[in-house]
Amino acid sequence: MPDAGGLIGARPDVVDLIRVKRDGGELTEAEIRWLISSYSAGEVADEQMSALLMAVYFRGLGPAELRTWTDAMVSSGERLQLGAVSAPTVDKHSTGGVGDKVSLILAPLVASCGAAVPQLSGRGLGHTGGTLDKLESIPGWRAELSAAEMIAVLGQAGCVICAAGPGLAPADRRMYALRDVTGTVESIPLIASSIMSKKIAEGTAALVLDVKVGSGAFMRDIADARQLAQTMVTLGAEHGVRTAALLTRMDAPLGRAVGNAVEVQESVATLRGEGPADLVEVTLALAAEMLQLAGIHASHGAALAAATEALSDGRALERYRVMITAQGGDPDAELPRAAHSEIVTAPASGWLRRLDARGVGVAAWRLGAGRARKEDPVSAAAGIICLAKPGERVERGQGLLELRADDGSRFARAREALADAIDIGESV
Amino acid sequence: MPDAGGLIGARPDVVDLIRVKRDGGELTEAEIRWLISSYSAGEVADEQMSALLMAVYFRGLGPAELRTWTDAMVSSGERLQLGAVSAPTVDKHSTGGVGDKVSLILAPLVASCGAAVPQLSGRGLGHTGGTLDKLESIPGWRAELSAAEMIAVLGQAGCVICAAGPGLAPADRRMYALRDVTGTVESIPLIASSIMSKKIAEGTAALVLDVKVGSGAFMRDIADARQLAQTMVTLGAEHGVRTAALLTRMDAPLGRAVGNAVEVQESVATLRGEGPADLVEVTLALAAEMLQLAGIHASHGAALAAATEALSDGRALERYRVMITAQGGDPDAELPRAAHSEIVTAPASGWLRRLDARGVGVAAWRLGAGRARKEDPVSAAAGIICLAKPGERVERGQGLLELRADDGSRFARAREALADAIDIGESV
Repeated sequence: MPDAGGLIGARPDVVDLIRVKRDGGELTEAEIRWLISSYSAGEVADEQMSALLMAVYFRGLGPAELRTWTDAMVSSGERLQLGAVSAPTVDKHSTGGVGDKVSLILAPLVASCGAAVPQLSGRGLGHTGGTLDKLESIPGWRAELSAAEMIAVLGQAGCVICAAGPGLAPADRRMYALRDVTGTVESIPLIASSIMSKKIAEGTAALVLDVKVGSGAFMRDIADARQLAQTMVTLGAEHGVRTAALLTRMDAPLGRAVGNAVEVQESVATLRGEGPADLVEVTLALAAEMLQLAGIHASHGAALAAATEALSDGRALERYRVMITAQGGDPDAELPRAAHSEIVTAPASGWLRRLDARGVGVAAWRLGAGRARKEDPVSAAAGIICLAKPGERVERGQGLLELRADDGSRFARAREALADAIDIGESV
Repeated sequence: MPDAGGLIGARPDVVDLIRVKRDGGELTEAEIRWLISSYSAGEVADEQMSALLMAVYFRGLGPAELRTWTDAMVSSGERLQLGAVSAPTVDKHSTGGVGDKVSLILAPLVASCGAAVPQLSGRGLGHTGGTLDKLESIPGWRAELSAAEMIAVLGQAGCVICAAGPGLAPADRRMYALRDVTGTVESIPLIASSIMSKKIAEGTAALVLDVKVGSGAFMRDIADARQLAQTMVTLGAEHGVRTAALLTRMDAPLGRAVGNAVEVQESVATLRGEGPADLVEVTLALAAEMLQLAGIHASHGAALAAATEALSDGRALERYRVMITAQGGDPDAELPRAAHSEIVTAPASGWLRRLDARGVGVAAWRLGAGRARKEDPVSAAAGIICLAKPGERVERGQGLLELRADDGSRFARAREALADAIDIGESV
């Protein structure tokens, strides 16, 4: 027999809160703080939180709810103190794309222009790669640093890229793992609070967001991307972090390399001034935004000029080498190479009109560059090199993509993912 | 970093199913069968099922989905075989109300008219009581019977009221417990499949549903009640159970007694032909429907006449006594009496326009007649006697309700629940 007893108040409070959200109501500040802290303490069960998260998926969170929700995530752990860092701090976060190795270039670039970049990054899951996975292809490099080590590297190199410690927004860590297995990842307020709680806890004074939009991005729709960007900018401002966002396209892979070691190689080439145009453009745009937000340069033009110069004169590369070395890595070491490779050729002559980011991302993932589950290892050497880019003329039989894998049996499924990713036509 | 990896198929299947339902899609028959059997086997986690259930709350289940869902619940356990029972079988289910002791009278009444009534009942949770809790106030009476015992009582008395064994629709049992703590009870397809899976597994050939609507009912809205009724009737027909539904009002308590022992006493009085008019009317209407559906009488008039006669001439009471005795109870035993009582008096003279079922139900519950959690005990003696019924003339200071409890400290909170339950005015 169904009953309505809980409506009157005898059930655990959490059932009432689930019902309020389910029915489109607003949770109070006290209720949200209780909810997050009880969940952290294990008093609210996973099955209750996942039901509530699904209700949030449908009903959203109002501005006041979202502010409190994010604040409660931050308060579930420590907030880093970067006061001892003399340079103004500024970080960048990307919502993730295919071939998106911008962080590897941007952090040392912005550091070389006078800001301090404390970048806590993640690992890849699904078809988009993770910054830490890429850097871990460098022999000796360590992603896990203590807060003291992180601040020491930041002082020495002006930048640091490392994993978020377990003390930062632990409620978000637990909740993200739950969302991942319960179909509740794809919610703008939940995405925004997850990203921003970690960035707020990290202690950066300023933050530039690169919200990717397109086939290879998490957000495929421009309106959703804009809403996510606006939501995160507001949350940053509310928590004392000067935050700006750029929306950038993610329809084709960024640059030519997709994978781990191959993206490190392309990043180093870019730091030597030999980067592909699309990658350089996005990196400089973000760098200029960061330098303005950090107060290093007052105008976009001046900031862009400074970043362009630092990229071409080797100062950014030097910062990169110091950072890698400070984290135990050898910037001159040879990177792992794949035992097997295959070439995907153009099926016809014409203009390469489309090289779909998602298709390429999934193919690289299936080659071993990504993981299906958090606990899976990734291959350092697997990946894809784009031998042609959209807008280029190609001839039938010409190589379009070089696939690399440690295990030759992986090529077949990677090619399947590419079946609809390539479009060659008479005009661009 | 959020990702869309699961969209491409690397996550456990259940995440894809959650996403399909969340996004308004339809699950296939194979998917639903896999889901329910994997959940039963513990391979789909509670936090995944609760997220899916919340998605079902928002998106509903289509007719084909609901049919399969219900069928999978039935298939998770055994289906009783009542072929050895010579009389036609017919059962009744109520969605629950305040003072709803109809089953206690109806089962022996219909049995005395020639049908066999195999009634699997539940315990109360929240402000509506449970049939088993009421009967357990009779010394010696046992709710838990084996399938063989159940069939034996059915053969002897023509009716049996007992708990559903653990082998009947075990997936529903587990899922209902999950829904209860995750705010996912209030969904028409989930309510319908939960009720009907147990009734289908019980093996009855026919079923009459009493769908209550009103302030004290689970369904407060007539359109929702009608939809629930229609959904259950269709499910019954699809599974070979001839099913009909009556919608009956539940705005005031049914009869005068609300509680456990007090409802048994009122039921026995009704079986003696001394029942309150509203209770007798509902009971006879359901009995007539059951007798028609069982094929005992072809017309409503003949069925109603037969039931009316069996209630007045003592045959129904005799069946009740046989059934109670066969289940270990002493129908002549004195029932527990409460140690404390208080009278709620009329605050003014006039017509009693409203005696709100929900308010009275909650008050009885707080007096000890109901439980907040499944594992809580209930008081046999606690409850409320309605000394006046809506539509009656009352004088200021006259007793309206008699509250009974084992523990005198319970009266204050019970009175709070009654604060808005009573309305006395100049006209009816």
